[in-house]
Amino acid sequence: MGLAEKIKEIQPLSWNDQNQSVFIIDQRRLPYEYKEIEITNHFEMADAIKNMTLRGAPLIGIAAAFGMVLAAKNNLELDYENFIESLRDADKLLRSTRPTGVNLTWALDKIQSMLQVQLNNVADPNSRDTWIPDRVGDGNRQMFNAILEKAKWILEDDINRCKKIAHVGAEHIKGQFKNKLCKGDKQDSNKLRIMTHCNAGALATGGYGTALGVIRKLHEENLIEMVYANETRPRQQGARLTVWELVHDNIPVTLNTDNMAAYLMQRGLIDCVVVGADRVATNGDAANKIGTYQLAIVAKYHNIPFYVAMPNSSLDESISCGDQIPIEERGVEEVTYINGKACTSDKANIINPSFDVTPKGLISAIFTE
Amino acid sequence: MGLAEKIKEIQPLSWNDQNQSVFIIDQRRLPYEYKEIEITNHFEMADAIKNMTLRGAPLIGIAAAFGMVLAAKNNLELDYENFIESLRDADKLLRSTRPTGVNLTWALDKIQSMLQVQLNNVADPNSRDTWIPDRVGDGNRQMFNAILEKAKWILEDDINRCKKIAHVGAEHIKGQFKNKLCKGDKQDSNKLRIMTHCNAGALATGGYGTALGVIRKLHEENLIEMVYANETRPRQQGARLTVWELVHDNIPVTLNTDNMAAYLMQRGLIDCVVVGADRVATNGDAANKIGTYQLAIVAKYHNIPFYVAMPNSSLDESISCGDQIPIEERGVEEVTYINGKACTSDKANIINPSFDVTPKGLISAIFTE
Repeated sequence: MGLAEKIKEIQPLSWNDQNQSVFIIDQRRLPYEYKEIEITNHFEMADAIKNMTLRGAPLIGIAAAFGMVLAAKNNLELDYENFIESLRDADKLLRSTRPTGVNLTWALDKIQSMLQVQLNNVADPNSRDTWIPDRVGDGNRQMFNAILEKAKWILEDDINRCKKIAHVGAEHIKGQFKNKLCKGDKQDSNKLRIMTHCNAGALATGGYGTALGVIRKLHEENLIEMVYANETRPRQQGARLTVWELVHDNIPVTLNTDNMAAYLMQRGLIDCVVVGADRVATNGDAANKIGTYQLAIVAKYHNIPFYVAMPNSSLDESISCGDQIPIEERGVEEVTYINGKACTSDKANIINPSFDVTPKGLISAIFTE
Repeated sequence: MGLAEKIKEIQPLSWNDQNQSVFIIDQRRLPYEYKEIEITNHFEMADAIKNMTLRGAPLIGIAAAFGMVLAAKNNLELDYENFIESLRDADKLLRSTRPTGVNLTWALDKIQSMLQVQLNNVADPNSRDTWIPDRVGDGNRQMFNAILEKAKWILEDDINRCKKIAHVGAEHIKGQFKNKLCKGDKQDSNKLRIMTHCNAGALATGGYGTALGVIRKLHEENLIEMVYANETRPRQQGARLTVWELVHDNIPVTLNTDNMAAYLMQRGLIDCVVVGADRVATNGDAANKIGTYQLAIVAKYHNIPFYVAMPNSSLDESISCGDQIPIEERGVEEVTYINGKACTSDKANIINPSFDVTPKGLISAIFTE
């Protein structure tokens, strides 16, 4: 992973002012290859979200916002009404890319409500809001600028939220494990062994990460003995992304297959579990990558605290419990093909639910900003 | 899997009288290719066990017994004392191949105690036992015949045991689910949805299988709606072998990754779980493929019966509880490489325990002959 050392801080998505385009890390290639690709329009961005060139609920939200930036940029020449119409189309396309994570909706709603304010202002020249196109022809350009500013804010804001979540989570965990952490000197045996599932890291957010943000913060304080990363079949985000990210930051990490989690807990090797979330209902039920629910059950069985770290944008205030969260079924080839080679009979039925819902009763605490 | 249809009943190992050798299915190639390979000496057999060309606790025992047959065959020309010494060496090598399954020890002990009887008889010409070499030179040949007969018996006996286990298990399950099974006609909704882990089928035994034997028996009675096969990382015996075997027998099967088990249970799709065992302590704690313990916990959480099917040869009477069962750690490349391609950073720590121990409290019933 020589390439990992070349980049200092993991930035899964960035706006390039010179090119007026978005650069994203192609997460499908990690850890084999570190490659950034340029996204120049909202169709490419929708594809990148769908085919998981980038993934992670908060990052999907950020990417969708920048998809709107690109749609605006590419339609500047349209007349004002068609320009507005093209933004509505782009919103619709981006909104349809992935169903489970709610940050996508959250980010697009942020752009939409900002647009609505602008539109109202245009409709009402007496509005006291400062945004009024100087000339009608400038409307598109100013709208574009407003969307770009909002998208940049969503990106920056997400990183700040991650850092706040990390602080909240690290303080909580330090409180829970103070007896262990206060023992004598900082030998490994007085530090924490934390398990995580999938990737809720810098690669899943604007940067720094939610669950891995908490772990990063604890590592900065020299309190991590070992992170256990579940492989996370079928797409192996744990083996590919979480391991890569932690190796990049010199945080000690051990990879285990998903079915080894209970064994590790039985052997007393896990102090607590921290995962991310794609959507949380108002009662506290949390949807996250498939396997999270199973992990929460085995953690409970071993009396191991199970934490969820997430930005408030993952909270869906419109639903009262987890049953109402739609679970994305992805293509079966994610299960049957690994590294381009079939690994089962072509006559079997296959299922591929990408997420599951962990009921609140299995969650010890939710860390938010 | 066109090849599967060409063979009628799955026979993972057979003695070839003409060649005086053993033919085994190369299970590493399934389901991509059905290929039998010829094993001509006990070194090759030891390698086949170690590198998992064949696997499954009962089958490993059978294979070791035939390893002894091949050792005897290839050393017939030695003088009697060296012949006996060569058998001791072969026994030692075969015994060291894999540590967790106890059927290996059981089968080799069967051969050894039979040999001991022969040796005692040779030493005591007045013994009333019928086996006495006609001439001293005939001793090796007669010893070989005796070992061959014993190995053939172990193979045949294992298939018979599997069928008895299947009967016992199927009857028990029918009793437990009689309300569901007796409802109206034989629509799918009145049949059973059974989950299994790894492969405890014909491919893991002399034939027919333990856990899959129970499922086969229920299918023969038209009582199976669906078998859910856990993929079983890292070596994917579920995806590769169980799916192949069930497709071969036209038993409906759905493949899921290991971390989807709890999700399926949460959705009410699983009636019960049946797995095999590699070694069971006298208190009922059962060692089986990694992930079995985790599966037992999530089954318990959902109040789903969890059954273990095994021949008595998997019972280790010398140990009182599961803590004493040695857990094999296999090479880390089983976790890090899939289909010959690395799937994680080369700087991560990796663990690869091949088995775990399910405490008796999580097991609803053990089916034996």
